[in-house]
Amino acid sequence: MNERLFAFVGGNQGRWKVQEMKTLLGPALEEIERIEVVSGPGANAEAKWRLLGVTSHERYVTRPEKTDLVSRQEGLGREASTCAALIPIRKNAAWWAMTQDERREVFEESSQHIQIGMRYLPAIARRLHHCRDLEIQPPFDFLTWFEFAPGDAKAFDDLLAALRATPEWAFVDRECEIRLARKE
Amino acid sequence: MNERLFAFVGGNQGRWKVQEMKTLLGPALEEIERIEVVSGPGANAEAKWRLLGVTSHERYVTRPEKTDLVSRQEGLGREASTCAALIPIRKNAAWWAMTQDERREVFEESSQHIQIGMRYLPAIARRLHHCRDLEIQPPFDFLTWFEFAPGDAKAFDDLLAALRATPEWAFVDRECEIRLARKE
Repeated sequence: MNERLFAFVGGNQGRWKVQEMKTLLGPALEEIERIEVVSGPGANAEAKWRLLGVTSHERYVTRPEKTDLVSRQEGLGREASTCAALIPIRKNAAWWAMTQDERREVFEESSQHIQIGMRYLPAIARRLHHCRDLEIQPPFDFLTWFEFAPGDAKAFDDLLAALRATPEWAFVDRECEIRLARKE
Repeated sequence: MNERLFAFVGGNQGRWKVQEMKTLLGPALEEIERIEVVSGPGANAEAKWRLLGVTSHERYVTRPEKTDLVSRQEGLGREASTCAALIPIRKNAAWWAMTQDERREVFEESSQHIQIGMRYLPAIARRLHHCRDLEIQPPFDFLTWFEFAPGDAKAFDDLLAALRATPEWAFVDRECEIRLARKE
């Protein structure tokens, strides 16, 4: 298995308890009680669903942007980060038909995706997983996992609102949002 | 299964007969007699090996470059294209640690990968398959499949020599080359 593969296993088991599930666009995911985040394919007969994605190299950041991000961001698993969110999204055919320069133009020059995320560092930690080039038919293109402290939940709402107001989001054709709390 | 998934199934069956197998860098692939190119995962108990990859959106071309490519290139499956080559390559960690702007700089501004390929259109048809973000642990990052007429075999050799002489190729840490002829 690809060592960068992660599974988000939805069902009635797992360390993360669902607080709220929303469907912003496209079909809903089946309701679940808990999510377990595992390294590898996460085969689990008791799961209601299982979303797979791989972490990968960055597609859009430039070196100065990356240096800035790396200096500010913190990793997953912080003790105080008892809140999490899983946001699976799919982008439409028009997005994928664009060339790299066109996608970068929408992503950053028009939408400031990187700059918006930067404003919430280090409070909001994130890990992006790519699904589009898996061998399975992926229901989403990206799975983003966020972790933050309860006191930063309002900041996280602001981050989502800012991203969803960008020109980039016109290319999103499926989006779900699952908010979670850590329960050992 | 991902509808962009293709399998290169190596063994003693298939439409393409091996003329020559070369290992340019890294471990060799096991010797085979034939390759079948199939849509999907290509599960086949008789195969000696099976390489999987997905076609995907372009990572480096700009819109003017893409317009130019599309106007000149021809697809696979031409009647006269009785020669083919499969070139699996892997790039090293230094390549994948670069940001998009740095990779584009090496890929095109320094190495002219797109411009070199353009010189051999429409004679040399190609299809690029990505392996790096599959859920299996991929032995290569890319599988490129080329088709051309026997009279263009020398041009194909020149294309390979030109690409291998570029700064981009310093980042290649595994490369094999399989030359094939179509046998119905």
